[in-house]
Amino acid sequence: MTSLLILSKYAETYQQEVEAAHLPSLQILLPGDSAAGSAEIALGEPTLLCRALPTLPRLKWAQATWAGIEPLLDPALRRDYTLTNARGVFGGLMSEYVFGYLLARERKIFEREQAQRKQRWDASLTGTLCSKRLGLLGVGSIGAAVARTAHFFGMTVFGYTRASEAEKEIERYFHPPLQAHLTEFASELDYLVSVLPNTPQTQQTVNAELLAALPARAVFVNVGRGSAVDESALMRALETGALSGAVLDVTGQEPLPAQSPLWNAKNLLLTFHTSAPSFPREIAQLFIENYRRYQAGDVLRYEVNFSEGY
Amino acid sequence: MTSLLILSKYAETYQQEVEAAHLPSLQILLPGDSAAGSAEIALGEPTLLCRALPTLPRLKWAQATWAGIEPLLDPALRRDYTLTNARGVFGGLMSEYVFGYLLARERKIFEREQAQRKQRWDASLTGTLCSKRLGLLGVGSIGAAVARTAHFFGMTVFGYTRASEAEKEIERYFHPPLQAHLTEFASELDYLVSVLPNTPQTQQTVNAELLAALPARAVFVNVGRGSAVDESALMRALETGALSGAVLDVTGQEPLPAQSPLWNAKNLLLTFHTSAPSFPREIAQLFIENYRRYQAGDVLRYEVNFSEGY
Repeated sequence: MTSLLILSKYAETYQQEVEAAHLPSLQILLPGDSAAGSAEIALGEPTLLCRALPTLPRLKWAQATWAGIEPLLDPALRRDYTLTNARGVFGGLMSEYVFGYLLARERKIFEREQAQRKQRWDASLTGTLCSKRLGLLGVGSIGAAVARTAHFFGMTVFGYTRASEAEKEIERYFHPPLQAHLTEFASELDYLVSVLPNTPQTQQTVNAELLAALPARAVFVNVGRGSAVDESALMRALETGALSGAVLDVTGQEPLPAQSPLWNAKNLLLTFHTSAPSFPREIAQLFIENYRRYQAGDVLRYEVNFSEGY
Repeated sequence: MTSLLILSKYAETYQQEVEAAHLPSLQILLPGDSAAGSAEIALGEPTLLCRALPTLPRLKWAQATWAGIEPLLDPALRRDYTLTNARGVFGGLMSEYVFGYLLARERKIFEREQAQRKQRWDASLTGTLCSKRLGLLGVGSIGAAVARTAHFFGMTVFGYTRASEAEKEIERYFHPPLQAHLTEFASELDYLVSVLPNTPQTQQTVNAELLAALPARAVFVNVGRGSAVDESALMRALETGALSGAVLDVTGQEPLPAQSPLWNAKNLLLTFHTSAPSFPREIAQLFIENYRRYQAGDVLRYEVNFSEGY
């Protein structure tokens, strides 16, 4: 018998979904259970997993329900278990978010609503995504989905990535160090989209130099992690008109403190880390698939490399 | 020598584009020219073409720069010439418009902006287009483009059309009379999108019966013609909550009169006939291609059938 401890705000849904899969030799435990401390597998939110880690001496595998697993990277915590995160399920949601905001801008969705309120027949021309250029910081599974959607709408995509060059929808690839190719990468972008995770290598990738290399018409969208952005430099670029807009789903501090100047920054929209929710039903399927691999002794999908941080 | 009369707000751009193509045996005329009345071909906006028609006895072909050619359908006007309209260029723009508004709704783009203004961290869940159902009224080239985009986002599409069943992205087709299949077509739709032109057959297709057959969660988007909608029935459905929203790019009267109740109708967005502008550069290419066919004696593309009205 293999024991699974579920540590989640949505524990009930996870339990139902896992039970419905009738997985062989699996016993489900919840935090109150007397046997909880003997669990071999844990499934849950990284914020809950990290607190439980010291109480789970037999843990061999933890499946995080999020993509971001920063809480589990604390150097004080154990790393003698296999950590897998949620991947492959967010690309579609992230694309909907990114293109929702890109289209809102091109089609003047806010401006038309204002015009309607003033009973003004605003037939001014709209823009189009077709033929515009999108720069992508990070080309993992989420970046690839964003690139495919951009391509579908007739955009060209430049991709900045540490390694992979696998996506045919990306017209040009750039590799670190980014500062060596800033002008080539950034000077003709209409949109810059970051899907970068929080790792030592990605800190403040979007800095004053990169922002200065963008044309003034450009809009920045961050669906990765706030740590990849120098927020002061971003606000300055927006204030001076060096950048025409920004949409931040993520920020350095979350929730954003009441006194943060980001709340009222010029031409900046905040969306409170909602771009790609982990729907328990979807994440449960990912766990179920991985559990079958675990039982069969196969390599698990989406294993996190602790030293790389994703 | 063949003479072409350009009748357009953007005559200068059209002239430049046509000249740049170096078409053989073509003389370009503008309204002030003494030879204007002898033109064999006319290119321009239907509102200008219809006024010029009686003054062009030698006209053999008119290329409209719009999709909608209602002004030229006036029974008092000649029909002894070939009329072609603009098609095949609006699908991408229309899709951007439709999906801009669909994503704005799913991703709560207006609500999040309100939350930001109130400095409220609104992390409420968003919706997704994936697995939702879109009903399409009209499946020509624009409808097909909307269907492809819906399919790209993981939606299922039901299509209502007089004839064609050519699009593989459409899961189920429905044919007139619509009232014979109202429940099957409408009862599970999340979005109803009309791209219907203004013809005798399409008048008030979106009537009280169709609106009543939609679930209360549904949103109606009109990028076709206003005449396809019973606007009073639409406002009643919005007022009573029988329908949760509407986005109208087109209305029965345009521009909308100041006293129209549509300006302030509940959960209704107006966008002032901006969904798919005729960009002169694009339309000029379409004319150039058709002129080459004309010279070669080939059938022109996008010929309008006067009795069908499109």
